[in-house]
Amino acid sequence: MKAHLTRRYRFSASHRLHSEQMSDEENRSIYGKCNNPHGHGHNYVLAVTVSGQVDENGMVCNLVDLDDCVHREIVTRFDLENLNTRPEFADAVPTTENLCTVIFDLLNQDILKRKFTQAHLEKVRLEETMMNSFEVTSS
Amino acid sequence: MKAHLTRRYRFSASHRLHSEQMSDEENRSIYGKCNNPHGHGHNYVLAVTVSGQVDENGMVCNLVDLDDCVHREIVTRFDLENLNTRPEFADAVPTTENLCTVIFDLLNQDILKRKFTQAHLEKVRLEETMMNSFEVTSS
Amino acid sequence: MKAHLTRRYRFSASHRLHSEQMSDEENRSIYGKCNNPHGHGHNYVLAVTVSGQVDENGMVCNLVDLDDCVHREIVTRFDLENLNTRPEFADAVPTTENLCTVIFDLLNQDILKRKFTQAHLEKVRLEETMMNSFEVTSS
Repeated sequence: MKAHLTRRYRFSASHRLHSEQMSDEENRSIYGKCNNPHGHGHNYVLAVTVSGQVDENGMVCNLVDLDDCVHREIVTRFDLENLNTRPEFADAVPTTENLCTVIFDLLNQDILKRKFTQAHLEKVRLEETMMNSFEVTSS
Repeated sequence: MKAHLTRRYRFSASHRLHSEQMSDEENRSIYGKCNNPHGHGHNYVLAVTVSGQVDENGMVCNLVDLDDCVHREIVTRFDLENLNTRPEFADAVPTTENLCTVIFDLLNQDILKRKFTQAHLEKVRLEETMMNSFEVTSS
Repeated sequence: MKAHLTRRYRFSASHRLHSEQMSDEENRSIYGKCNNPHGHGHNYVLAVTVSGQVDENGMVCNLVDLDDCVHREIVTRFDLENLNTRPEFADAVPTTENLCTVIFDLLNQDILKRKFTQAHLEKVRLEETMMNSFEVTSS
């Protein structure tokens, strides 16, 4: 039978929503308080969902392997960083929508390259605050 | 890439599950404790999900616009109200299923009328208590 | 209109992830700390989702009927039990994936047999810890 496994991780990072392509006034108009020059931080909660058949060991994916992947590719990369200074956001504003898309692509590439699981990356959800979350799903 | 944005809101309201179309005995049999004559209240948590392409500003939908819509159409309308006295429930029992459907329709109409976003109203989830929630999705 | 109702339940149970088909070394390699000989327990949170049309009483499913079903078939059966000693796991390791599948099948059989609702069992989610959850959906 097919099952979904969701595992949560945490990291903290800061960002400022600001685009060099636009004037200061346009930036303030679009990004509001998130355009504040000093930036601000979030304690992100990342929920990674993989799906697949339950194997003969009763598992969709070994959690140790999944943890290795997410820590290496995401937590180590972004925890306690200023996202605006990261190469992943050289050409894109580090909104949580864009961060969620970057995370999905990094995890998917690692799963496909290392083949540590037959499971499929189904969804990445990033909770920015208790009131906001963003999701990217495989299409 | 397509993404989903979910934002949570809170409001409190009271209701009594009771239909004038049925006898008192039938009402008690169907609605049980929720038919108690004095009504009772809930601290509802409303989660609104919109989906769409991430735009050139890195956003699915501007949160300020979404907040305006939900506060105007839902929170202001229902917060601290007795749902049984509202015109939206003149012909329907204010179960949380029916309230969730009313909320979906109100939000969808406002999004289509004001066109403040290209995003699509995907889902409305209403948490009645920590143990119960209801969802209506676009079909 | 179609709606989803999700209701949460709790039970606690212990398990040891160990297969008699494999050597001790293989078991340790696959199940890691979860293969610890003394077993360990979880406070499981079970979220049961049913879907269907909202009926003339404004309900997808009467919660009293759903509670009766879940308490009889799941909570009474597994609460405060060692899952390894249960007949449901005579031939399968009681991973949370397998437990989730067993719960889905037990609930689905009871709903189909007793016909207490027109609603359809859509999804069973089992939260093993705050960081892990598993889902089985109807296909």
